[in-house]
Amino acid sequence: AQSFRILVLPGDHVGPEVMAEALKVLDVVEECRPNLRFERTFDLVGGSSIDKHGVPVTEEVLDKASKSDAVLFGSVGGPEWANASPNPEAGILGLRHKLDAFANLRPCEILVPSLLEASPLKPEIVKGTKFIVVRENCGGAYFGDKVEKPEIASDLWVYEPREVERCARVSAAVAKILGKNGDGKGGGGPAIVWSADKANVLASGRLWRRVTEDVFKREFPDIELRHQLADSMAMLMVKNPRGFNGVIHTDNTFGDILSDISGGIVGSLGTLPSASISGIPGEGRCNGIYEPVHGSAPDIAGKNLVNPVAQILSLAMLLRYSCVLVDEAAAIEKAVERVFDSKEAGGLGIRTKDMGGDAGTKEAGNAIAGEV
Amino acid sequence: AQSFRILVLPGDHVGPEVMAEALKVLDVVEECRPNLRFERTFDLVGGSSIDKHGVPVTEEVLDKASKSDAVLFGSVGGPEWANASPNPEAGILGLRHKLDAFANLRPCEILVPSLLEASPLKPEIVKGTKFIVVRENCGGAYFGDKVEKPEIASDLWVYEPREVERCARVSAAVAKILGKNGDGKGGGGPAIVWSADKANVLASGRLWRRVTEDVFKREFPDIELRHQLADSMAMLMVKNPRGFNGVIHTDNTFGDILSDISGGIVGSLGTLPSASISGIPGEGRCNGIYEPVHGSAPDIAGKNLVNPVAQILSLAMLLRYSCVLVDEAAAIEKAVERVFDSKEAGGLGIRTKDMGGDAGTKEAGNAIAGEV
Ligand SMILES: CC(C)[C@H](C(=O)O)[C@@H](O)C(=O)O
Ligand SMILES: CC(C)[C@H](C(=O)O)[C@@H](O)C(=O)O
Repeated sequence: AQSFRILVLPGDHVGPEVMAEALKVLDVVEECRPNLRFERTFDLVGGSSIDKHGVPVTEEVLDKASKSDAVLFGSVGGPEWANASPNPEAGILGLRHKLDAFANLRPCEILVPSLLEASPLKPEIVKGTKFIVVRENCGGAYFGDKVEKPEIASDLWVYEPREVERCARVSAAVAKILGKNGDGKGGGGPAIVWSADKANVLASGRLWRRVTEDVFKREFPDIELRHQLADSMAMLMVKNPRGFNGVIHTDNTFGDILSDISGGIVGSLGTLPSASISGIPGEGRCNGIYEPVHGSAPDIAGKNLVNPVAQILSLAMLLRYSCVLVDEAAAIEKAVERVFDSKEAGGLGIRTKDMGGDAGTKEAGNAIAGEV
Repeated sequence: AQSFRILVLPGDHVGPEVMAEALKVLDVVEECRPNLRFERTFDLVGGSSIDKHGVPVTEEVLDKASKSDAVLFGSVGGPEWANASPNPEAGILGLRHKLDAFANLRPCEILVPSLLEASPLKPEIVKGTKFIVVRENCGGAYFGDKVEKPEIASDLWVYEPREVERCARVSAAVAKILGKNGDGKGGGGPAIVWSADKANVLASGRLWRRVTEDVFKREFPDIELRHQLADSMAMLMVKNPRGFNGVIHTDNTFGDILSDISGGIVGSLGTLPSASISGIPGEGRCNGIYEPVHGSAPDIAGKNLVNPVAQILSLAMLLRYSCVLVDEAAAIEKAVERVFDSKEAGGLGIRTKDMGGDAGTKEAGNAIAGEV
């Protein structure tokens, strides 16, 4: 029997609501696989931790996180803590840093054809889009030295080769797993890797490009690597998102923005999961933080309205990357697709309001748990 | 009679082609307004300057620029100079810096309804979109101190209040001119200003937000200012671009990316102009650099294929901001719309290939010059 320690941090507002649904799904996985055990520990993060402990994440929680096999994270923040310093979001950054979860993976795809309508893009433009953004997650401007005085403020946008190298290895591993076909099994050979930077302006961008180029030449000569300026990347992602099918490999700042463009392309943040991992996919277990891309949505909290899918798919990523339970992860993803898909297409047509349906958070969660 | 000194820098590849068409339009303006004179001086910039002088912009050209009333700039760069150091783009940065052209204005709108089809977005989503990005253009990470060694590279993302203040004043002035109706005459009162930053992570972002807030409270209490995190801004711009009708006020890095998203929304970069100005609109003449958002497009250069509209609309911005010739600017903009618009809608239906038409660069330029 295999046992995994999962630290569960539901967070604020809709966080606990979506977490409850993801945990139902985890229960089902445990029931169906008697040889697997998931020991869950619960704790506070974000605003709820500020309220109780004065900080968005305590040393104790950071410690628990690093002793766990993975962290399942809800979402944090809200107007109550608008003036808190440090703010609830600092809890996420603290965790990423503590676990050295240096690679942030954000898949972008329209899960089922009948969801095309949720996209603001024309169906013929967005159809078939399937890429994963790999964002460097522990360096760059968001973690560099800060100066904060009334008369001047600065953030140091800094990279060392080591940081770019390990992120490039994750991007390469993801490209191999994803495959040119996008089947998640490497079908068609490794997917293309698009590296985004501003090498025409930033010194850190030139280092990013040089080191990425070196790693791929030396270690992954069979993977096609293309460089793209981050600004024109943003434009082209909107104009022709399918053109980037594969892996987008980029630094912390540009990755932050480009991965949110993915959210815009899909139309609903409610389905987008993310993983922040501390190792190379395919090279065994590694710790990680798994959270929906969406925030804590205070406006709809407590109303059984929020879409639990991003949290449930984050759980699937947890099983895939931190536990190396690839079949179990795929089963959850398939279940989500079946629940979503229209009845005409053989699915259940169960969707929450943000996706044009009328199911509540719990109904959607139950349906997915039922399908797994 | 009024006289203006214009420095014309066509640049590389398609640069000279689009410039020729803009100058035809300027000729027409001069013919129709005998009391206006535009003295033009021509010089090299970008790759063509590297070839002749070894640098993308010479001291002499920088000097001429600062002694001119405005700079009309084509586009620079190309594969020939991929390894040049400094690169052709450094010519743009050098000019911006020399003229202290601290505010970069990039309008985003679908010029005529019949152009909606060029957008990757659904017509009902993109229809009626009209905003202007005001990007801080001389500070932040692109101009901060750089370290560039094999073992570490960094860019300092730094702001002082003075830099944010003057940019905020430009954003406010643009909001007043644009107006809530978007009629360019302040109709409906000042437009909303959306300030984008990452105040939740960056020290420079918190300074940006604080100073912007202060300037608007103190100097423009009648203008509605809203803050938005830059990442979620990127998402929402794709999801619901009309939601940002008004002015987007943002720093150099985020402005670079967000203004390129505008290009994605419109679908064709070929119609998007930009202005980098050194003063506050509405407060008299100021020097500036006017250039298309698109690049030098080496692949279609010399083929009479490139769309001259972005360059022609950049000329209109030059007349509006550097010369305060508001009617002349509007006449050019109207002429462009008439030439573009479909015959059914009362226009000439003349468009270049990138917009689904079959007119060449020269035909389009001639038609617009004819209409002015
Ligand atoms: C909340 C914030 C610190 C965080 C980031 O910028 O990294 C978020 O925007 C994200 O993308 O995960
Ligand atoms: C060419 C480059 C230096 C420039 C910039 O990043 O400012 C360009 O991308 C722009 O947006 O005008």
